[in-house]
Amino acid sequence: MGTSPVRETDVDVLIIGAGPAGMMCANALAKAGVNVRIVDQRPKQVAAGQADGLQPRTIEVFQSYGLADRLLKEGNQMYAAAFYNPGPNGIQAVPDVTAPTARYPFEITLHQGAIENIFADSMKEMGVEVSRPMLPTQLDLDLSKLADPTAYVARVVLKHLDAPEGEASTEVVRARFVIGADGAHSWVRKRFDIAMEGLQTEYVWGVVDMIPKTDFPDIRNKSVIHSENGSCLVIPREGDKVRLYIQLEGKDAVDASSGRIVDKQRFGPHKLMEVASKSLHPYIFRTPETFDWWTIYVIGQRVASKFSIHERVFIAGDACHTHSPKAAWKLAYVLRGWAGLSILKTYELERRKYAQDLIDFDVKWADLFSGKPRTEINQGGVSHADLLEAFQTFGGFTSGIGIHYSESALVDYANQRYARNVVIGQRMAPQTLIRAADFRVEELQDLLPSDTRFKLLVFMGEMKALGELAAALEPIVSKYGQGTAVDVLAIAPSRPPGFCVMDLPPVLRSHWSKVLCDEKDLRGRQGGTAYETFGIDPHVGAIICVRPDGYVGMIAPLKEAGSIATYFASFME
Amino acid sequence: MGTSPVRETDVDVLIIGAGPAGMMCANALAKAGVNVRIVDQRPKQVAAGQADGLQPRTIEVFQSYGLADRLLKEGNQMYAAAFYNPGPNGIQAVPDVTAPTARYPFEITLHQGAIENIFADSMKEMGVEVSRPMLPTQLDLDLSKLADPTAYVARVVLKHLDAPEGEASTEVVRARFVIGADGAHSWVRKRFDIAMEGLQTEYVWGVVDMIPKTDFPDIRNKSVIHSENGSCLVIPREGDKVRLYIQLEGKDAVDASSGRIVDKQRFGPHKLMEVASKSLHPYIFRTPETFDWWTIYVIGQRVASKFSIHERVFIAGDACHTHSPKAAWKLAYVLRGWAGLSILKTYELERRKYAQDLIDFDVKWADLFSGKPRTEINQGGVSHADLLEAFQTFGGFTSGIGIHYSESALVDYANQRYARNVVIGQRMAPQTLIRAADFRVEELQDLLPSDTRFKLLVFMGEMKALGELAAALEPIVSKYGQGTAVDVLAIAPSRPPGFCVMDLPPVLRSHWSKVLCDEKDLRGRQGGTAYETFGIDPHVGAIICVRPDGYVGMIAPLKEAGSIATYFASFME
Repeated sequence: MGTSPVRETDVDVLIIGAGPAGMMCANALAKAGVNVRIVDQRPKQVAAGQADGLQPRTIEVFQSYGLADRLLKEGNQMYAAAFYNPGPNGIQAVPDVTAPTARYPFEITLHQGAIENIFADSMKEMGVEVSRPMLPTQLDLDLSKLADPTAYVARVVLKHLDAPEGEASTEVVRARFVIGADGAHSWVRKRFDIAMEGLQTEYVWGVVDMIPKTDFPDIRNKSVIHSENGSCLVIPREGDKVRLYIQLEGKDAVDASSGRIVDKQRFGPHKLMEVASKSLHPYIFRTPETFDWWTIYVIGQRVASKFSIHERVFIAGDACHTHSPKAAWKLAYVLRGWAGLSILKTYELERRKYAQDLIDFDVKWADLFSGKPRTEINQGGVSHADLLEAFQTFGGFTSGIGIHYSESALVDYANQRYARNVVIGQRMAPQTLIRAADFRVEELQDLLPSDTRFKLLVFMGEMKALGELAAALEPIVSKYGQGTAVDVLAIAPSRPPGFCVMDLPPVLRSHWSKVLCDEKDLRGRQGGTAYETFGIDPHVGAIICVRPDGYVGMIAPLKEAGSIATYFASFME
Repeated sequence: MGTSPVRETDVDVLIIGAGPAGMMCANALAKAGVNVRIVDQRPKQVAAGQADGLQPRTIEVFQSYGLADRLLKEGNQMYAAAFYNPGPNGIQAVPDVTAPTARYPFEITLHQGAIENIFADSMKEMGVEVSRPMLPTQLDLDLSKLADPTAYVARVVLKHLDAPEGEASTEVVRARFVIGADGAHSWVRKRFDIAMEGLQTEYVWGVVDMIPKTDFPDIRNKSVIHSENGSCLVIPREGDKVRLYIQLEGKDAVDASSGRIVDKQRFGPHKLMEVASKSLHPYIFRTPETFDWWTIYVIGQRVASKFSIHERVFIAGDACHTHSPKAAWKLAYVLRGWAGLSILKTYELERRKYAQDLIDFDVKWADLFSGKPRTEINQGGVSHADLLEAFQTFGGFTSGIGIHYSESALVDYANQRYARNVVIGQRMAPQTLIRAADFRVEELQDLLPSDTRFKLLVFMGEMKALGELAAALEPIVSKYGQGTAVDVLAIAPSRPPGFCVMDLPPVLRSHWSKVLCDEKDLRGRQGGTAYETFGIDPHVGAIICVRPDGYVGMIAPLKEAGSIATYFASFME
């Protein structure tokens, strides 16, 4: 055939890297109807090991995409954390998740390939599949066209690693936006010389995944073992598997000058089990016949200095040390022409702060956990109480539940007092409500799916002056489109006998399923606490504006519903 | 090709009829590893209408097969029943499900084809598909071989209704067992001259499925409208659809001599809507542009006089007026050689009584509901209170939750006092428990899947003399096989700190996941009430033996665990 021509394709968003962060993002964009392409250099998904822990907030996000069921079925649910410290009374089991509003009071552990598969199957239904193995070799931006959101400003050269003979081994993709979700050693990040800020610690850890043979009582709980023979962390996984994180002596495994692990062979899984056994003494850990996966790594506590290049290239996941599909709805809004490029600035604003906070926590935690325990002869060591306190203090935060976005065009702190416990900038908490038309028990979070719509939760208060309220809401809803960019849910403070959905103004009942009541269910077992929990006066009411990603964007008093228009106008066309 | 030879096949169980009853049964048998074949004379599934209501107990059964998720997602959930009667205060909404232990406090409505699809997809994974369109034309039993459970005693001739030219249009299937799930006009039932006992009423009803245009306030609730212009029943369905049951004047629609509906054309859906409008006055019901489905029928209140022919041919579903896969595990036990043919006698014993009870209820209910309402001038009519009382009195029963099997080889009432509120012969109620090893919140019913195993729930009481208990249980479990015919779950009355699964005798912890505690979850929100709810003394304990279909077969005191052996020996080889 001679030389094949180079294939050229156009795409709205190109995602480089099909790990959990890239897949989550690709799925979110595909669901939003965005023309997305995702490529990965690995010939296949990883079959075991790697990233495996999902925090409570991440499970809520899966649920908002309709993907939590499978995660809950396939993964292990970790409810408890057990702390083992030297000395008497050194064992204590506490809830692993301390955030009181977490809908799922546990972490999920599941191997990375299984997590990726959940997204892959969801995307397949929408006709999106990962192109692999494909390696990016060039990425250029046409800086002259940055201001035009419709321009294909990025030109990416991709190399097909197993192109059949005679077919082009190179492809050029022109994209409006590029997301680099290509891991800790991100090619995209390096391409733009984005520095990683922070420390590379001296803490070296080994990791083994296996089915254990042990008499350790808390083998099915997250166990933090702080011993004089090094620290160890037990993480139960799907099925009967368990992961051990094992602290190693840095000097043995790391070259002091390069900071690289010099002799991985020395610390094969058998050696790691030996070290673990000492830490876990007096409990017995027999070395299993086979290992599922293992590795050794140095704890890094670094954050990328930038998460975005001109709001056209973004880095996500391990590439910048944060991951989530948080940017997806924003990209969709820009691509639909609903919002200007400027809202993309909030990606770095919101996510980099969280990444930095996480790292700051990690620094403290690693020092505590990797440090020597306090004992009679080492009074300066870390005490059981120190560790436990840190764990519980930061629990709301590490679970993801406590993520709190700063003020921006998308977050307006002004009217916090109308819903005292609905923290503006945090995710909307779960709450049981009763559907007015049919008494169905509904979870509020299930009414806030990640469908790229803003949700206006109209807590109607005394339900007086609903005509005025409707008159103020109608132009807003009609401008941005009921069911398009905006969805209105009306929430009455109770359901008196004879309550009829049809008595409400049409803007508050676009469908009969959109009217809820803060009422106990018919068996009297749940519900009836939403106004109180959220700190909303049932006489006064409030409108809570929830962003497409589930975060509270602003609150409006009922009498100033028009302020929602001002909020939308600050970022929407 | 000339004349094709007749195809002959052997199968363990042949099911005739692929409606919900036949499909449910086929799926259960396939799951039990039984070689099953299912045929239906319809060329395709029904696309709309037909049977559509699933009672709370049926939803529990779906869950026990891992099929409830999809049902809950696709179907409508009906929580409330509203009663409309002439006169002041004639409107009242009450819970639709009154059985306090119902795990799902609602009915589900979903069209028959969608219900069948849930089973079809589940069966497809196991390689079983419906053969259609196929009509049975002959069914003979070889009476000389009845005593041999391995004998193919049934010979069924099936006609392929759309066999391609040149291929055999007839097939002969030899089966060990045959299940006739072929509907109200069952060919199998007629083949064996099984009489239907009971009454054909004079009550004629019309049914229409549609998306309504109405101002009726309870359009999304089951509404029982008892008016002077005839009765009407509103049943909300999946999506925005609603079904109306409309009482007709019998003399208009039924031929007095034959009992047949003579003029279905007269009562087309438009006419039915006219009648409904009068009943529903003063609310407005506009006739929709299209109807999803409609029919007219005469209420029948009849039960087949037999459910079984020599325990080789069974009728199920509308063919006998009961349906469920209750017989599946029993057939599986016989086919595996674990139990004798005699346990199949309990099918008719258990299910016919329930069918008869249902019909008895239906007679009373139809009289009340189809009768004229009480008004000032008709003081002999049916009052609002009469209807409501009947509804609530029979709620536990109609929901399926109250099904209560008589004593038999499979049901031994003897030791009821050891678990006062676990009614022997009824299904095991739902209950929250905490898994000992990892504090996971578990629903007891999820630990009792329909996997053809008996579950021994060992409520360990004070956990003294566990060695003795283990010694008594071991021979039983080893005879019938842990994980084969028997599964042991150990339930401690609490979870004291340091509780360790490995401290229990091995027979009580075949896997770490099999040990539960009656303890509150780590957030203190649920759990910790099982012993109390079940009426088990935490000092004394008890063993509850749950049958593979979720029904309580017997209870043994801890000190007489050996009595379980006697129970098993009464029906197992």
